[in-house]
Amino acid sequence: MNKLDFAPRGFSQTEFEQRTIRAQQMMHGAQLDALLLTTEPNFRYFTGFKSQFWESPTRPWFTIVPLTGKPIAVVPEIGRVGLENSWLDDVRTWPSPRPEDDGVTLLADTLSSVAGRFGRVGALLGPESHLRMPVANFERVRQLLGKTEVVDASGLMTALRQVKSAEEIAKIHTMCQIASDAFEHLPNLLRAGDSERVNTQRMRIDLFERGADSAPYLMAASGPGGYDNIIMGPTDRVLTAGDVMVIDTGTIYDGYFCDFDRNFAFGHADDLTRRAYDVLYQATDAGIAASKPGATTSDVCNAMWAILEAGGALSNDVGRMGHGLGMQLTEQPSITPTDGTVLIPGMVMTIEPAMTFAPGRQMVHEENIVITEDGAKLLTRRAPVDIPIID
Amino acid sequence: MNKLDFAPRGFSQTEFEQRTIRAQQMMHGAQLDALLLTTEPNFRYFTGFKSQFWESPTRPWFTIVPLTGKPIAVVPEIGRVGLENSWLDDVRTWPSPRPEDDGVTLLADTLSSVAGRFGRVGALLGPESHLRMPVANFERVRQLLGKTEVVDASGLMTALRQVKSAEEIAKIHTMCQIASDAFEHLPNLLRAGDSERVNTQRMRIDLFERGADSAPYLMAASGPGGYDNIIMGPTDRVLTAGDVMVIDTGTIYDGYFCDFDRNFAFGHADDLTRRAYDVLYQATDAGIAASKPGATTSDVCNAMWAILEAGGALSNDVGRMGHGLGMQLTEQPSITPTDGTVLIPGMVMTIEPAMTFAPGRQMVHEENIVITEDGAKLLTRRAPVDIPIID
Repeated sequence: MNKLDFAPRGFSQTEFEQRTIRAQQMMHGAQLDALLLTTEPNFRYFTGFKSQFWESPTRPWFTIVPLTGKPIAVVPEIGRVGLENSWLDDVRTWPSPRPEDDGVTLLADTLSSVAGRFGRVGALLGPESHLRMPVANFERVRQLLGKTEVVDASGLMTALRQVKSAEEIAKIHTMCQIASDAFEHLPNLLRAGDSERVNTQRMRIDLFERGADSAPYLMAASGPGGYDNIIMGPTDRVLTAGDVMVIDTGTIYDGYFCDFDRNFAFGHADDLTRRAYDVLYQATDAGIAASKPGATTSDVCNAMWAILEAGGALSNDVGRMGHGLGMQLTEQPSITPTDGTVLIPGMVMTIEPAMTFAPGRQMVHEENIVITEDGAKLLTRRAPVDIPIID
Repeated sequence: MNKLDFAPRGFSQTEFEQRTIRAQQMMHGAQLDALLLTTEPNFRYFTGFKSQFWESPTRPWFTIVPLTGKPIAVVPEIGRVGLENSWLDDVRTWPSPRPEDDGVTLLADTLSSVAGRFGRVGALLGPESHLRMPVANFERVRQLLGKTEVVDASGLMTALRQVKSAEEIAKIHTMCQIASDAFEHLPNLLRAGDSERVNTQRMRIDLFERGADSAPYLMAASGPGGYDNIIMGPTDRVLTAGDVMVIDTGTIYDGYFCDFDRNFAFGHADDLTRRAYDVLYQATDAGIAASKPGATTSDVCNAMWAILEAGGALSNDVGRMGHGLGMQLTEQPSITPTDGTVLIPGMVMTIEPAMTFAPGRQMVHEENIVITEDGAKLLTRRAPVDIPIID
């Protein structure tokens, strides 16, 4: 069994009250009567409702945050018991699936009833958002709302969620420690002669034995001296001497992700591999050091890229070198040359330098940090200084 | 190790060619120049691209099926290698994330280039669909397309995907057999005195040891003589004598789900529990027997409900008694009194009668079938005739 102190499950009611109040403050600033939320993380953020049932795409679920008072749930009948056991007082249901009116009129009526002050409802329509409801139904809701406008509130939700509470950080820290334990044990489980898939499933089982809840992302990639992608595996490719394999995991504890990776060499590592590993290790250090309150994501990006470029990087095909982390595997902001988001205490980020260091040979390192008044604090335990060799 | 014959991984190129040709036939009928697809299952259906990276909601991914020729991928740069190794010839990429133009102009240009014949592009806007891209970007694409209309094609995609190929059915069958093995072994792993969560994690690990790839849905619920919901657990509730627990699993083998459940009684089962179990068992039999080509989902629903009602059902709060199954945990059609979809050979369905048989006491049974010319064929191995007792 594990010796970790696991963060307690669930949240205090204060947590949800404070999230709601912060949202309502921002809504006043944005002149919004209500926020309409349709995706699992946003729904859970305000209700605490945590269910795997979101895996079923059949039924839409809605939370409305009004300008005053508690959030209102507008959900399929199957969700009534779960929501009635939440901190909410107002749970409205309809029998779903009902294709001819799958919550549309109930949602429009509820929005209308709270949209009297500014005549504006915020929905998430902007960058990195999607609406988890049929577009035709969204258009119908807009019609039914008449003069009440539906405007984009994606920036508001990003600002709200990107600063994590102490309770949220504790969950992410727990998950990062479970996965750090698993990665440090992994050399005992990896074997040349087995496939990426078989090796990865050993880590999956180990993660659960250590207390992880689920592992929606457990990616592996390998190749001689490096890999040519970081999103397609694990495959049936069999590991042999000279291979480098990366395993990257987005594993969940109580609804919060870690997201980091580790690299392993099979049999031996050539000089180019060792050098790439060292450059990426240094770039990660530089990214962590640059992640101070008041610095921007672009500062962090530039600090890493300077080291990668000096170290012989040919390119970066990932599109960024880190991102926000929390209820989603990836959240805003992005660590890119142009993102420019100012780092604030409470933000949880991945530091993820990547480079192609020879044709067809990529390497990626990744750690998870939280921004504090004193700079970055590691949530993961740092990768080994030298690439582990699997005999 | 397992004695199952596992279906081979991946698909023949013929499979993708036939899917594309079937789609193009339907597109001619609907006068569509192109289909625009944004979600993981639809993207995978035409490209074969299978990646856990969809867990990251940051970047949009697009597949376009033109009226002639192979599908075209319009994807973030990070997906280039994976797509270039697919059967597609035309892979267009942009560096993502790029909030100011995250694939919008590239997508619009590509759609415009194939939308000359009818001036109509089909996107999924209707029942049970959602667009996995920001609404603001979708509206911008519509603007850029000028006179080319974007219309709903969700019915077309439903019709296409709901009839499974032999290769698809083999994968679902494999997954159903793995989970049947796991459920039959489960009485050896379940223990009173442990929580729903701990008991469920034992099954999770067992599923992986038997060859499942991932388990996005592994739900448990319990209570004295029945449970009051089927979507909120597993929780830290500790099992004690007199409890009934259901475990419902949507587990994946090579990208295809099973979705079925089993019920267990701890210590003993009272008469009401045994009777409910028996009624649900009979209703399941009736649902399977009614699932013949030419019958409708409503016929199947009525066949089950007649038995549940005669057996003392107070209500059904699930909203339906089964659904399609495949790349998604739940797919169209729904088994409801009004759905009315005609069953066709190749459709894979869950048969899922549920009832509240006493206040706060629900029970749900579930099996998976494929419709054949000769009627329903079970993909799962049938539940035990009597509720298993865990000592």
